[in-house]
Amino acid sequence: MTYQIPEINLKALFLGDKGENVDLFKDVLLKIVDEHVGWRQNYMPQDLPVITPFDKSSKSFQDTADHMRSVFNELSSKLRSQSLPWHTAGRFWGHMNSETLMPAIIAYSAAMLWNGNNVAYESSPGTSQMEEEVGHQLCKMMSYKAGESWGHICADGSIANLEGLWYARNMKSLPLAIKEVAPEQVEGKSEWELLNMSTDEILDIMEKIPDQLDEIKAKSARSGRYLNKLGKWLIPQTKHYSWLKAADIIGIGLDAVEAIDVDSSYHMDITKLEARIRELAAEGTPVLGVVGVVGSTEEGQIDHIDKIVELREKLAKEGIYYYIHVDAAYGGYARAIFLDENDEFIPYDKIDEVYKKHNIFTDMQLKDEWLTEDVYNAFDAMSKVESVTIDPHKMGYIPYSAGAIAIKDSRMRDAISYFATYVFEKDADIPALLGAYILEGSKAGATAAAVWTAHKVLPLNVTGYGKLMGASIEGAFRFYNFLKGRKFNVDGKVIELHPLTKPDFNMVDYVFNEEGNTDLERMNKLNHDFFDYASYVKGSLYSNEFITSHTDFAIPDYGNSPLEFVQSLGFTEAEWDKAGKVTILRACALSPYAHDAEVFEEYAEKIANAMQDKLEKIYTYEMNEQ
Amino acid sequence: MTYQIPEINLKALFLGDKGENVDLFKDVLLKIVDEHVGWRQNYMPQDLPVITPFDKSSKSFQDTADHMRSVFNELSSKLRSQSLPWHTAGRFWGHMNSETLMPAIIAYSAAMLWNGNNVAYESSPGTSQMEEEVGHQLCKMMSYKAGESWGHICADGSIANLEGLWYARNMKSLPLAIKEVAPEQVEGKSEWELLNMSTDEILDIMEKIPDQLDEIKAKSARSGRYLNKLGKWLIPQTKHYSWLKAADIIGIGLDAVEAIDVDSSYHMDITKLEARIRELAAEGTPVLGVVGVVGSTEEGQIDHIDKIVELREKLAKEGIYYYIHVDAAYGGYARAIFLDENDEFIPYDKIDEVYKKHNIFTDMQLKDEWLTEDVYNAFDAMSKVESVTIDPHKMGYIPYSAGAIAIKDSRMRDAISYFATYVFEKDADIPALLGAYILEGSKAGATAAAVWTAHKVLPLNVTGYGKLMGASIEGAFRFYNFLKGRKFNVDGKVIELHPLTKPDFNMVDYVFNEEGNTDLERMNKLNHDFFDYASYVKGSLYSNEFITSHTDFAIPDYGNSPLEFVQSLGFTEAEWDKAGKVTILRACALSPYAHDAEVFEEYAEKIANAMQDKLEKIYTYEMNEQ
Repeated sequence: MTYQIPEINLKALFLGDKGENVDLFKDVLLKIVDEHVGWRQNYMPQDLPVITPFDKSSKSFQDTADHMRSVFNELSSKLRSQSLPWHTAGRFWGHMNSETLMPAIIAYSAAMLWNGNNVAYESSPGTSQMEEEVGHQLCKMMSYKAGESWGHICADGSIANLEGLWYARNMKSLPLAIKEVAPEQVEGKSEWELLNMSTDEILDIMEKIPDQLDEIKAKSARSGRYLNKLGKWLIPQTKHYSWLKAADIIGIGLDAVEAIDVDSSYHMDITKLEARIRELAAEGTPVLGVVGVVGSTEEGQIDHIDKIVELREKLAKEGIYYYIHVDAAYGGYARAIFLDENDEFIPYDKIDEVYKKHNIFTDMQLKDEWLTEDVYNAFDAMSKVESVTIDPHKMGYIPYSAGAIAIKDSRMRDAISYFATYVFEKDADIPALLGAYILEGSKAGATAAAVWTAHKVLPLNVTGYGKLMGASIEGAFRFYNFLKGRKFNVDGKVIELHPLTKPDFNMVDYVFNEEGNTDLERMNKLNHDFFDYASYVKGSLYSNEFITSHTDFAIPDYGNSPLEFVQSLGFTEAEWDKAGKVTILRACALSPYAHDAEVFEEYAEKIANAMQDKLEKIYTYEMNEQ
Repeated sequence: MTYQIPEINLKALFLGDKGENVDLFKDVLLKIVDEHVGWRQNYMPQDLPVITPFDKSSKSFQDTADHMRSVFNELSSKLRSQSLPWHTAGRFWGHMNSETLMPAIIAYSAAMLWNGNNVAYESSPGTSQMEEEVGHQLCKMMSYKAGESWGHICADGSIANLEGLWYARNMKSLPLAIKEVAPEQVEGKSEWELLNMSTDEILDIMEKIPDQLDEIKAKSARSGRYLNKLGKWLIPQTKHYSWLKAADIIGIGLDAVEAIDVDSSYHMDITKLEARIRELAAEGTPVLGVVGVVGSTEEGQIDHIDKIVELREKLAKEGIYYYIHVDAAYGGYARAIFLDENDEFIPYDKIDEVYKKHNIFTDMQLKDEWLTEDVYNAFDAMSKVESVTIDPHKMGYIPYSAGAIAIKDSRMRDAISYFATYVFEKDADIPALLGAYILEGSKAGATAAAVWTAHKVLPLNVTGYGKLMGASIEGAFRFYNFLKGRKFNVDGKVIELHPLTKPDFNMVDYVFNEEGNTDLERMNKLNHDFFDYASYVKGSLYSNEFITSHTDFAIPDYGNSPLEFVQSLGFTEAEWDKAGKVTILRACALSPYAHDAEVFEEYAEKIANAMQDKLEKIYTYEMNEQ
């Protein structure tokens, strides 16, 4: 059913930093638990319960129940003593974790009682339909055409990326297989031309010869053929280890992966990308595909997807084609902030009008600080790539684990599909055996129910998720402005805070440095020590007043892209070469509360005090022992 | 903590076919929810709640909450109208689904509130420790040596199988890489010898040269090298499509997969396995690995793992070695029924004594019907294979999705490990970045909590899970005996029930046939029609009085292994060739209640009536229209 969406108040959708909404939470949860129990009771009410009152009074029943309660005491103790307090409205600025949506939590808990397995329609009609619907919603969020595109939920972003690479690998090999099975379809094409056919062109041919589809697939890369012919897989230098792992697993191998340098603001350098593709072409090496990242793991930066697409259009005229996969595991849901209430991509000059109407930002000045045409254009161009990874368990505010992939052309599904007779029944829209079309097999129907419920409550546009994205971005910019130029006095020294770069999204990287310090290793130590005091490393998380995360930008991974930043802090290039890395603190600003000026101001003072306190400890116990 | 395990009463551990334990369920669930809320409230109690009473009274808050409630009404309706009533104590004999353990459901719901992500220790200390513990428990269940073995939870069995193949592929290639990087370690070995080194031998070398580990790995199959040299991956003919998919994904390709015939009781034919390996060796093709299945998807049969291991020992003397992966996604937990209260594998002649002491079967005669030395030996030998897939979400009675893999030698981990600086901290036991050692990335801490809690409540031996396995097997044999020789009179015809084969475990396959029918296609139609009436295909599941699942054994997948069964029903070989398949009905007997003689007898009559009713409908509407 379609809902009239009210003015969404985000505060009604989270359990609350202090559990404020626990009554609402229990009310909705218990209602659906009772409905589940009613369902059990009323299936064949003529059957009597097998667990009788006498069973329940027996000693073994009581002992078993007491044993279970004891185990729960241990579980609860472990969870409460060894978990991260990301629920705080303003003290957790660390790893990508936060409050998740109450409707998603309840829906998962509820649907788990029905325990559908979405691998096969037969065993989960209800949740299979929900997953199909979620797939189409994600496609719509990418502005993929309805009816032509497809998506599904998967375990996580690494699996979705691997599946994207699987698509790319098998697609790239298809023309070589067509050449063997139906040579008349690619008559006159050289091997180079076969390896540079566009995805559309390949799928159009496949559609023309359905009877030969199986034979062509059997001779494609899935057979084990051609893996060394398919060329290079180009990823940004800020490469996530999941891409190396994916290349290993998928068999093209790490030797087929090449990193393209990022610039000093951590975006893939498109000039270098073009140069490298031309170099490879000159030596006869094709490009299997290019990965653009929307929300890089360490910086939250948004690659210039538009320029990667434009470059492909330009090179296509010279007979060069590459598959594009966008890794928007982190940033995928942020596209909702660019879609109006009719799910249309908002023209750039109408953004302010729409945001004001829907109260996307409480302070439009922070929106102005954030939104550049570059970021806007990158999101816009996502509609033009073959596949995209989007993690509901990141910016979808869904509990772990829920990843997803969307593909622009649903015909690609057939390039990787398998069938097993025992679960295969023909159905018009929904694959009877989802497992035949995806990397995984068995999968929780409860995940689909959680994502489906969240998407129904919060549509994937400015009326729903867009507001949540706005809150997150606004909170990030408040934190960014809080950091800029801030100074502490510790142990007679001035310690300065420096943000790494202006965020494209909601991740804020930063460093502490002593005024006048010219020793980069000393700064790295300071920030590493700060992390220790602001994480599980030193003492209880529960008594920690400010929590953050950290990362290292090291030369083997980053080359010299951090050099400009390092120099801006007064370090020489020689220092950079000597240290070989810069240690960074990193805040994913996901809190749904911190965008509020009053809330932020209240916590700003607390954060400043906690930072001061940690710095004092560091200078007492760590820095002076060097 | 270690618990004194009481006499376990399974009836205290499930919500109940009629929701009998809903009070206990809510009691435990709400207690831990309250403890979670208390945890939120008491982290920095000086911070005031951000959601104020005024917020809660606002119109937008009320509207948003009402909107959420409306969506939950839709969710609940969809779940109740389009889910399978597997909770019934005796009417669901279908797909592998059933009641799941109440402690696992509650633990998942609870831990989801803390939302740990086990990809990185930093973001989930508590649930990361639980996952590590679960891994060791699963290893112990396989009788892998403590301290030398390792395991972890993954998304599902397909992913675990893929990871097993990933291990096998990279391991097999290591000697070729060692030859390049540290040739002195493999001096004098031919390529054939390198490709037939044992896993132990390879790992011992790797351990000796830690400084060269990275370089060796970089030149192994992960680089993209050698994929076509590694030989054949041998799987049973009852091959699950996930193995074809895995070979595609992992890059060895479908052409490297070979199916070994199964015998007429659906076990891999070891004589044919040996013959094929010798043939391959004669032509210089190595065997990458052999998959044995413990609990085949369609029949629940248990391959002769002991004989696969013995064959390897025999062939090793002739310089042939293969990796063994056991796909015990379905049957893995059944090994708990062979472990005594000290987790020692019970000697065959002590089984009866131990089972009597722990009340594993209510009727030991059914145990005698089930347990053969073949099955016993197969489970025993699982301790000798490199890796094993075990799905908690199948016979672990954990809600979807929870798969797992265990490896005998934890040094294999290094053969596939990756690191990413941002989450990498050294730790003695627990990988700081689990994602660097496994196929997936982000993963729910809640899954680990669910499995951990279930394992604490029910230890993986005869005091815990063993009892549940016994109940399941006993229920299966009651159903099997119910089917044997049963006849129905319909429309003047006698319809007979025939089980496919005596089950090795808890899955019962069967067919209906008209007495005297010699037309196999007619029998197939009868069974397919029966499935339609006993599934979602015809009408509401909720008003269906007997539910089952079905499969086809077709010649392309099964060869002639079903021929003996088909002939035993009076069909000629010519009929078999003409029909090309036999349609089978399939019951996974997972109910924790149906082992009880009284319960089963009560439902037996209901099932017989429901079958009669369906057959009458079929003969009214379907069979006579042919």
